[in-house]
Amino acid sequence: MDRTIFDSVSPLEFRYLKNEETNRLRDYFSEEAFIRYLARVESALVKAYAEEGVFSETVAEEVAQSVDKVCATEVYAEERRIHHQIRALVNCMKKHVSEKSAPWIHLGATSHDIICTAEAFRYKEATYNLLLPQLAKLLENLIVLAQREKATLQIGRTHGQHAIPLTFGFTIAEYIARLGQRMVKIKEAADNLRGQFSGAVGAYNAPSLLVNDPVAFERKFLQKVNLEPAEHSTQIVPPEYQTDFFHAITSAFGVLANLADDMRHLQRSEINEIAEKMEKKQVGSSTMPHKRNPIHFEHVKSLWKTFMPRMSSLYLDQISEHQRDLTNSASSRFYTEIFCGFFLAVYRLTPVMRDLVVDKVSLEKNFQEAAGKVGAEPAYILLAKKGHPDAHELVRQCFHEEGKMEDLPLDEKEKEFLADPKQYIGKAIEKTEAVCQNWRQKLTQFVE
Amino acid sequence: MDRTIFDSVSPLEFRYLKNEETNRLRDYFSEEAFIRYLARVESALVKAYAEEGVFSETVAEEVAQSVDKVCATEVYAEERRIHHQIRALVNCMKKHVSEKSAPWIHLGATSHDIICTAEAFRYKEATYNLLLPQLAKLLENLIVLAQREKATLQIGRTHGQHAIPLTFGFTIAEYIARLGQRMVKIKEAADNLRGQFSGAVGAYNAPSLLVNDPVAFERKFLQKVNLEPAEHSTQIVPPEYQTDFFHAITSAFGVLANLADDMRHLQRSEINEIAEKMEKKQVGSSTMPHKRNPIHFEHVKSLWKTFMPRMSSLYLDQISEHQRDLTNSASSRFYTEIFCGFFLAVYRLTPVMRDLVVDKVSLEKNFQEAAGKVGAEPAYILLAKKGHPDAHELVRQCFHEEGKMEDLPLDEKEKEFLADPKQYIGKAIEKTEAVCQNWRQKLTQFVE
Amino acid sequence: MDRTIFDSVSPLEFRYLKNEETNRLRDYFSEEAFIRYLARVESALVKAYAEEGVFSETVAEEVAQSVDKVCATEVYAEERRIHHQIRALVNCMKKHVSEKSAPWIHLGATSHDIICTAEAFRYKEATYNLLLPQLAKLLENLIVLAQREKATLQIGRTHGQHAIPLTFGFTIAEYIARLGQRMVKIKEAADNLRGQFSGAVGAYNAPSLLVNDPVAFERKFLQKVNLEPAEHSTQIVPPEYQTDFFHAITSAFGVLANLADDMRHLQRSEINEIAEKMEKKQVGSSTMPHKRNPIHFEHVKSLWKTFMPRMSSLYLDQISEHQRDLTNSASSRFYTEIFCGFFLAVYRLTPVMRDLVVDKVSLEKNFQEAAGKVGAEPAYILLAKKGHPDAHELVRQCFHEEGKMEDLPLDEKEKEFLADPKQYIGKAIEKTEAVCQNWRQKLTQFVE
Amino acid sequence: MDRTIFDSVSPLEFRYLKNEETNRLRDYFSEEAFIRYLARVESALVKAYAEEGVFSETVAEEVAQSVDKVCATEVYAEERRIHHQIRALVNCMKKHVSEKSAPWIHLGATSHDIICTAEAFRYKEATYNLLLPQLAKLLENLIVLAQREKATLQIGRTHGQHAIPLTFGFTIAEYIARLGQRMVKIKEAADNLRGQFSGAVGAYNAPSLLVNDPVAFERKFLQKVNLEPAEHSTQIVPPEYQTDFFHAITSAFGVLANLADDMRHLQRSEINEIAEKMEKKQVGSSTMPHKRNPIHFEHVKSLWKTFMPRMSSLYLDQISEHQRDLTNSASSRFYTEIFCGFFLAVYRLTPVMRDLVVDKVSLEKNFQEAAGKVGAEPAYILLAKKGHPDAHELVRQCFHEEGKMEDLPLDEKEKEFLADPKQYIGKAIEKTEAVCQNWRQKLTQFVE
Repeated sequence: MDRTIFDSVSPLEFRYLKNEETNRLRDYFSEEAFIRYLARVESALVKAYAEEGVFSETVAEEVAQSVDKVCATEVYAEERRIHHQIRALVNCMKKHVSEKSAPWIHLGATSHDIICTAEAFRYKEATYNLLLPQLAKLLENLIVLAQREKATLQIGRTHGQHAIPLTFGFTIAEYIARLGQRMVKIKEAADNLRGQFSGAVGAYNAPSLLVNDPVAFERKFLQKVNLEPAEHSTQIVPPEYQTDFFHAITSAFGVLANLADDMRHLQRSEINEIAEKMEKKQVGSSTMPHKRNPIHFEHVKSLWKTFMPRMSSLYLDQISEHQRDLTNSASSRFYTEIFCGFFLAVYRLTPVMRDLVVDKVSLEKNFQEAAGKVGAEPAYILLAKKGHPDAHELVRQCFHEEGKMEDLPLDEKEKEFLADPKQYIGKAIEKTEAVCQNWRQKLTQFVE
Repeated sequence: MDRTIFDSVSPLEFRYLKNEETNRLRDYFSEEAFIRYLARVESALVKAYAEEGVFSETVAEEVAQSVDKVCATEVYAEERRIHHQIRALVNCMKKHVSEKSAPWIHLGATSHDIICTAEAFRYKEATYNLLLPQLAKLLENLIVLAQREKATLQIGRTHGQHAIPLTFGFTIAEYIARLGQRMVKIKEAADNLRGQFSGAVGAYNAPSLLVNDPVAFERKFLQKVNLEPAEHSTQIVPPEYQTDFFHAITSAFGVLANLADDMRHLQRSEINEIAEKMEKKQVGSSTMPHKRNPIHFEHVKSLWKTFMPRMSSLYLDQISEHQRDLTNSASSRFYTEIFCGFFLAVYRLTPVMRDLVVDKVSLEKNFQEAAGKVGAEPAYILLAKKGHPDAHELVRQCFHEEGKMEDLPLDEKEKEFLADPKQYIGKAIEKTEAVCQNWRQKLTQFVE
Repeated sequence: MDRTIFDSVSPLEFRYLKNEETNRLRDYFSEEAFIRYLARVESALVKAYAEEGVFSETVAEEVAQSVDKVCATEVYAEERRIHHQIRALVNCMKKHVSEKSAPWIHLGATSHDIICTAEAFRYKEATYNLLLPQLAKLLENLIVLAQREKATLQIGRTHGQHAIPLTFGFTIAEYIARLGQRMVKIKEAADNLRGQFSGAVGAYNAPSLLVNDPVAFERKFLQKVNLEPAEHSTQIVPPEYQTDFFHAITSAFGVLANLADDMRHLQRSEINEIAEKMEKKQVGSSTMPHKRNPIHFEHVKSLWKTFMPRMSSLYLDQISEHQRDLTNSASSRFYTEIFCGFFLAVYRLTPVMRDLVVDKVSLEKNFQEAAGKVGAEPAYILLAKKGHPDAHELVRQCFHEEGKMEDLPLDEKEKEFLADPKQYIGKAIEKTEAVCQNWRQKLTQFVE
Repeated sequence: MDRTIFDSVSPLEFRYLKNEETNRLRDYFSEEAFIRYLARVESALVKAYAEEGVFSETVAEEVAQSVDKVCATEVYAEERRIHHQIRALVNCMKKHVSEKSAPWIHLGATSHDIICTAEAFRYKEATYNLLLPQLAKLLENLIVLAQREKATLQIGRTHGQHAIPLTFGFTIAEYIARLGQRMVKIKEAADNLRGQFSGAVGAYNAPSLLVNDPVAFERKFLQKVNLEPAEHSTQIVPPEYQTDFFHAITSAFGVLANLADDMRHLQRSEINEIAEKMEKKQVGSSTMPHKRNPIHFEHVKSLWKTFMPRMSSLYLDQISEHQRDLTNSASSRFYTEIFCGFFLAVYRLTPVMRDLVVDKVSLEKNFQEAAGKVGAEPAYILLAKKGHPDAHELVRQCFHEEGKMEDLPLDEKEKEFLADPKQYIGKAIEKTEAVCQNWRQKLTQFVE
């Protein structure tokens, strides 16, 4: 048929997963990919049985080869017939092996032994293969930027008001530390995703009829898909392993949203300290051709507004009655979109932060406008250090009312220091350097 | 290429929009459909100008014919070139008209004059053409069920505990009233969606150069797409019209979730008062073939957990800085999915409620188990009516402790009444009938 | 005891409800107040029975007088004894009337007949007595500001970038229209709050034993507390009436958050177009005495972040199993805080918007910086109006690249217009005036 | 004045923090307590300076003694005068020390050096002193229950339908494992809360004027309040340390909500396998004296609906512009309530789970009703183990349609096993024991 991607209703489909890199998300989160993951888990189970001696290794080899033969179209056709997805998958796999091997597929498994395990399996692989490398690239770009600009003066801002000096590199270092720490959280949470092979209510009822030590067997099976078992399962793996994983992602998304907001505001016409690099042929606005809009930063903020609220679905899905109800069936299918949304945001920011235009003229201009006022704090500190009884009020009057800084009881060297606010940047450069070195070194663990 | 629907990452695509009816959502919410809506709005604008005498009606006719010629593939190709979606659309439309007509397309419009208007336009049409008729069908099914079962005894339940009698029809009437009222809210909110033609910052800057009375012109243009203007716009229509619309949908979704939960629990093995009708070949469970699971009710609850939290994106998008920022760009594209999710839930429930299996044996059995205890309340009421000073405590002791109901100071007729709890159903039947009649009559307004 | 307000853990208690005006929230939402509302509802019920002739009017008079005698301390002491709040209230009320009248209190009522009705009653009164008048004051202040500044030039901003001109009054008019419309929604939703007298499962079981027409009696009783009955109740009034009410509040809160954000950004050091008026002795920062922070706007945004997410509790509470479960018991007690939080935000903004400092020098300065560029749009429009085939691209090149505006094919008068961007404000003044007049007139309906 | 707790609007105040145990929350989260924590942090700072030799140890001793002298009433009075809370605190502390020592208080600190540090300090102490011990008690009660009932047969339930056997102890073991793991998460997140002493924009501007190595000094100061510094601060500690802490709490709350829901449903009239122990004088319902409602489980679910959505405030507060805006000021004050709400839920469940009534008659009755059907799964497994080609379909027909289990091709011993479903409990007992032993041992780490 002549269906195109634009017949989709999901913006992920028709708009956001379109180039080579973002398309790689489909290798983990398309239904075609999920069917393959399910089949790989079924195959791992057969392999584990064969090693246990329940049947011959030949069966396992046959089943392993069937994994790539089964496809979503076939499984869905079968599902339409029998109204059960995993049973449909099993039926399809059976067709691709000999009559002798067929009965051993899915032996003693309940659907969610396979589904929960396949979910953990694919999230872990997508994290290692796609997300962590992309985060590492973004961090690397931030590190390069921060180190390059570690001594570039910028006026610090609190409440949107000029405060005291720092450097633009230090501003960026904030995001290196926060995002780096989130990256570690994501990795830890991915490493902690669990699988299961504990049967219909979690008590190993069926497995107990098939192997001597079903708890040990579960562990052996899961090793084949690089997972550990949950401490206790019902029909499903307890949700918290996933809840933690998506919290790690959601909270990392918040860091990106904050970065995007900061950059958006620094790109305001009146501030103009940074800018997204603009394509030559890019149309800024359909009626205001002069506009240079921070569209990528706006996009990242917007993705955050789309996906952050979805964390609530995870919290809602923590409740599953007794040994499980099915009310997480549809909702958990949509979790993958949160991963996709976050990846898209990281991916979008990566080149933008690499190519960020830093406008030193504006940075200097804004700094100079504040320069006359930033002496207040060091003046107060220097007075206070001498034990002046009411340093704060004295300086407040001096700056908010009629006084002059020169009249403050300070020595010449101190007044010179106050007269040159560029010196008042504390440890901005050293801290920037320390943060950059820490994460440059840690990144080597994430990208072998 | 041989891309299939299973290469999608969105469960809406590969799993939930697959049959003829649910596919109709694509007529409004696919990108192909949205491009068409945008083009229709552009065409309406040209038509309004022509009527105003800015140029000839021939131009308008040409442009009107171009609407069906433009397609998403073409527009996206152009967008890749110039990085602006609406400008891309306009460029494509121009190619489909004569050189003379081309310049008049999009005259004086800012992108969001077109986008906001097209959004309101399609939500309104989808509501009238798809959602309200589907809701009407579900309501009709509920009304038929409630009327049929209006006198079927059921034990009422509060706190999951047997309380006092009512009828199953009365139980269903709750949902008719609640869902009916939500339907009215959805219709009102759809009717109140607004468009705009007020230019880049909302002050009619550009339109003022083109027509004498741009405020009147805006109204005239919007009439062509069945909309009214917002009282005040910036670059965008104020978000609250949409916020209200999605609140109406989200709160209606909550009613469905409650209905689904109630039915799930009534289908529990121990209660068994109702059941989803099961397909002949349906597999209940891959390892427990005897199971009869309430999968449709579970599905509806799960959809609610997926889409209810997304209401927060709407609340977040109420904030747009100054005359707008673009941080609602991605997020607002995803609103359509909330509409789809709600439609899917209504659609799923429609046949399920029509074919609901009502198990009168279980209803009677559960009622009888409670029968011995439900006399407490009427006993208390009858005592109280006589002015007994401590009726409540007397009855409490009688039922929780050692007493017998026969010893209560009541006359024979009253004791007979108490001995037959089936009589103690209050106005359950009359109320059921009243609710059904009210909504049957109102439904005629929704389905001409 | 010497417990102070600072022993509270709730910030509402120790920090935000402290002055005369905000303390008035306690008249509706303290537990003392709620006990009084419950007692008033019990009294209204007795009155309705008396009118129906179930007992004498003397009973009703006695009970009416007991309302002010009962207090929370007494009720809670009784509740500790019997573990049931409404029964405790009834026991306390009985002590304050004669032995003859006592048994008639709460006759035939289930707890939630009283609780749901009292909730609706107090929300409605608080809305009319506190919230609508406060909103009217804020709107009045916004109207005064908008009319005063209706012709004050300001550069419009989209994406944080200078766009095209408007006036500061027009900027404010946006919030008048949006907030005014929300005020209407709040009023409508308050008017639509419902009560009930339908018994333990909603089928009027108990009332049917007491009066001939319990449906008519319910209506009669509720009229005494200025409410209408729900179309269908279970043990509780269906939640949607409250859901709508809090949606109206939450969405109005979003408008305030947007206003606060806009003002915060306009107060940025580099923009400086407006400022909160500062108290003489106010400390801007503990170490940066020169700071002039937009603390009230920041506070309002922060309150929104506190209370907006709580709307989800309302959506969650739409689900109550069968004729009700009690899982909304604690959660619904907390709804009152959302009302309080919103009132606090309105209250905080009222004087701030009245006393807003408008810095015309900065407005002019920012406008002038943009002036050279804002000609692009009208140039494009004027070219387009003449039917120029590629007006947009021509202007884009002219402004983004090497061209000069003078070279554009326009006549002298048009070039003059382009050279004076102050003329390019469209209908900003007229629209501001229209919005102000509309709401000034409508306000008279809210404050008699 | 005669203000009582019932003049409060917060349900936490008037309803939930009333007994000796819950009142202990006030030691950490009342404003009085917070003022004390702030003062303790100020004192720790002075102590660190004294050790650094900036001034004499006598100053530090004086300031340490002032901590207990300062109170909220005093600080708030001063704040009303100067409109700045931390400056007000400092002024008050100064009054309680000699004129010589006064100037050294708050030296070089920005307000949030104190506030962020005090917040981390109190959350950590409240976690160790209140929350972890309470969680340990609940877990201990669950362990006792699970071990006692480890062999008590129960029919497992999926989709609310009878599935296959397990034991009630195994059902409880689920919650031991899930809640135990959450407890570990809470502890880790509390241990990872951070403080700061990095000045107004985080670059150690002021501290650099006061000590040689401000980064080392920060660490030294924070050790005094048992905290580590953030890797990089702005004016505030990056929010993620708190975000993680409240995620740990919120996700633990979800486990309690699930436990509560499971118990509520097991207490349903028709199921009746467990019950909350009821007080002798407790009124079940004001009109239905026979009711035995699961009010504590309902309460816990309701608290979860109240507090779970508030996690969104934490995610929203991850965004703070540049070196910070103040829009987290009010919202972060309310975080304490989430801690309180969760503690209340744990506290409420502790005795309820200890005293849980387990109804063995109902457990047996429900089991027997299912017994005839649970043979399907083991029959299928035993057939499949023999390599039967279509075991699943064979069993499905046998159980859903006309067949008899006796006709299945199984040997006598197998048929005997199938005839006694009590044997089909897999490793329920062993797993229960393993989970209990694991957590009993781990608990020793939490309660020294």
